[in-house]
Amino acid sequence: MRCLPGPCDGRRTHPRLVAMSTALLTDRYELTMIDASLESGRHARRSVFEVFARSLPGARRFGVVAGTGRLLELITEFRFREPELEWLRTNSVVDTATLDWLADYRFRGNIWGYQEGELYFPGSPILVVEGTFAEGVILETLILSVLNYDSAVASAAARMVSAASGRPVAEMGSRRTAERSAVAAARAAYIAGFGATSNLEAGRSWGIPTMGTAAHSFTLLHDSEEEAFRAQITAFGPGTTLLVDTYDVPKAVETAVRLAGPELGGVRIDSGDLPEVVAAVRAQLDRLGAPNAKITVTSDLNEYTIAALRAAPVDSYGVGTSVVTGSGFPASGMVYKLVAHLDDDGAWIPVAKKSSSKNSVAGRKFPIRSMHRGTAVAETIHVGAEPEFGIDGRPLLVPLVVEGEPDQRFLGPEGTELARAHRASVIQELPVSAFGLGEGDPAIPTHYV
Amino acid sequence: MRCLPGPCDGRRTHPRLVAMSTALLTDRYELTMIDASLESGRHARRSVFEVFARSLPGARRFGVVAGTGRLLELITEFRFREPELEWLRTNSVVDTATLDWLADYRFRGNIWGYQEGELYFPGSPILVVEGTFAEGVILETLILSVLNYDSAVASAAARMVSAASGRPVAEMGSRRTAERSAVAAARAAYIAGFGATSNLEAGRSWGIPTMGTAAHSFTLLHDSEEEAFRAQITAFGPGTTLLVDTYDVPKAVETAVRLAGPELGGVRIDSGDLPEVVAAVRAQLDRLGAPNAKITVTSDLNEYTIAALRAAPVDSYGVGTSVVTGSGFPASGMVYKLVAHLDDDGAWIPVAKKSSSKNSVAGRKFPIRSMHRGTAVAETIHVGAEPEFGIDGRPLLVPLVVEGEPDQRFLGPEGTELARAHRASVIQELPVSAFGLGEGDPAIPTHYV
Repeated sequence: MRCLPGPCDGRRTHPRLVAMSTALLTDRYELTMIDASLESGRHARRSVFEVFARSLPGARRFGVVAGTGRLLELITEFRFREPELEWLRTNSVVDTATLDWLADYRFRGNIWGYQEGELYFPGSPILVVEGTFAEGVILETLILSVLNYDSAVASAAARMVSAASGRPVAEMGSRRTAERSAVAAARAAYIAGFGATSNLEAGRSWGIPTMGTAAHSFTLLHDSEEEAFRAQITAFGPGTTLLVDTYDVPKAVETAVRLAGPELGGVRIDSGDLPEVVAAVRAQLDRLGAPNAKITVTSDLNEYTIAALRAAPVDSYGVGTSVVTGSGFPASGMVYKLVAHLDDDGAWIPVAKKSSSKNSVAGRKFPIRSMHRGTAVAETIHVGAEPEFGIDGRPLLVPLVVEGEPDQRFLGPEGTELARAHRASVIQELPVSAFGLGEGDPAIPTHYV
Repeated sequence: MRCLPGPCDGRRTHPRLVAMSTALLTDRYELTMIDASLESGRHARRSVFEVFARSLPGARRFGVVAGTGRLLELITEFRFREPELEWLRTNSVVDTATLDWLADYRFRGNIWGYQEGELYFPGSPILVVEGTFAEGVILETLILSVLNYDSAVASAAARMVSAASGRPVAEMGSRRTAERSAVAAARAAYIAGFGATSNLEAGRSWGIPTMGTAAHSFTLLHDSEEEAFRAQITAFGPGTTLLVDTYDVPKAVETAVRLAGPELGGVRIDSGDLPEVVAAVRAQLDRLGAPNAKITVTSDLNEYTIAALRAAPVDSYGVGTSVVTGSGFPASGMVYKLVAHLDDDGAWIPVAKKSSSKNSVAGRKFPIRSMHRGTAVAETIHVGAEPEFGIDGRPLLVPLVVEGEPDQRFLGPEGTELARAHRASVIQELPVSAFGLGEGDPAIPTHYV
């Protein structure tokens, strides 16, 4: 018997709607590798896996790590209970010994990582998982799903925030990505510096401020724009934001100020030639005696169109499609690689695939953000051994999970706020050239030592 | 008290992990519009909303509708229970009257739509929602999230299937999209003609065949490639598929055939200059006496690289990033528009936003796939009234939800199979020009009547 949220009354519901274990959000081969390594006895070899991206998407200057806090919670729920085991058994995915191993599984190893909100560059080992081979390999798919998507959104969002030059930006793209990704996207954008989201579940789950008033359908439903505006003002007061581009913008602005008075909160513009329309609306609002009414624009914006509006009297931006799809790069290209394992004599063996096009560096990494007078100058990655004291820079790995226990500071709304604050702090270390929107080299080079 | 899947033992868990109501997967403005329309009394006006895309992404020739069956289940779970209401109340999102309305909400209207797996073109009204304004508008975000993402994946996947010219294609992109989107992507790709997925939850939830054997880490874990292959063959028999590009491909192929014998199931190649490598491996397998061993390739494939391998002796393809991200177009650009509502005299009023750049056609639509000798020739969209009998074509709207009750045939694994079969059938109606991979006009024009 499974229960929905709310009182447990034994009501049966389709497993799709209540299957909250994250254990099957996994590629089949993670489980078959465990099965086969139980055969060879190698499953228990102590191993180190690392997550990194070979390059930054779109020849950008930096990336933003996001998803870590969310991931730690999903790992906690990565358990094989009877519904999962039953399905694996029925479908002969693995043998009985493996099923027993899975039934007992919870991650008991250690995870280090870049603190959520940290910046990353090509090769940055943003997550390091240490445990037995089996307990590490089984998390591969889930870890990459979360970090690849969330970091793609955060990395794009950070560019929009910087293009907005201090004006607030809100995430409004829930309808342009699958329904649960929408919540993750709102969270990632917030970490990257967005100020709010339209997504209510992101408000509930992660404590992100939510916003939104009305769409064109609301105006179209009423017999006149005036009737619609009046209803909205009655419901939310004159401080509400009215959508003014359903029919004729100047007429709508006139109606808005007439009904709401000088306390009109703001107007939203969702179409048209924005620089011109915005300037005209600003002048009209001032002329009509509503100089404090704000102008929000929301028409298919991305970092480039935001930058193009720098000279326009815009007060805030709402961004949809481009932020939730990583502005052209919806996946960050992160991979999860076995970089070392203990051999039978207790020595760490560095390992890497030997492929012409996909070179990886074998061995465990210890990354440092090398600094000069407060500015980042290199991503210095020490391979094989931890660097000694006296290094000129900031060590980047922090413990996230110790013997299976996640650090509570990084979870929930508090962890999300912490990540946002961390991003705000470390982004100031970047050289000015990092904020160019065009293609370019990473803001700092990666050095392996 | 809330319970996880499994016995209800009263264990408390963070709401993020058990919040299965889909009601907050919603933009805040959907709820504030209900609040304001309760003020004006217009919330109860009978209304029709339609979902359509103004154009096909990437100047493609056709799109594939996916997500519908999944959406119907999510709509069933779109209920405001105490946890949702409490959060809305605490955060003053809407007033008390609106909270009461939400508490009572379940969708009681009607939904028609293109059958899942159907093809669509610019303007195709792929979903039509009829109900009160409030009960229709509140579903906007969820409907668009699901259809935009799932159709983006299915539309890209259909091109890969056609590029593969009958060879099987498997979806392996779970790690390149957020963890729950991965399940939706596997489902959408399957509907579009992929044969299997690596994602286990997609197997459990939607009955999709799952596949996968081992990654490079499995080989790297062992003291030799031979030790790794031997373990895998012991676990899964000689019919397993061995990954042969960790070190040296010809050596690995030699080892594979030596250990598995002529019953070797297959080899997988994940890197390198594929046409050449594949040809060499095929020749080597034949020479070594394993002519039945299959060759699977999985190296960053998309519809173009698949097409480029047509002349190579590939037996099957595994596609990751490109399919789960819509091959460059991760959102389908679908919108949800109020197109008509009843006025106080009981007459249907067609409505549309008047904007220069985003023209919509007011009024309810009745689409027909016009046919000539078994081939589709136009998407004929009758506006305002249902066409009369005797039309030369296939009516495209089918009832999906009648007075709040979804048609069970479209749900679950059975609905997914039905959608896959429908796509396989209707895609044969397309003219040959529809299968060009370059940019072009839609395969058939859209005519409004």
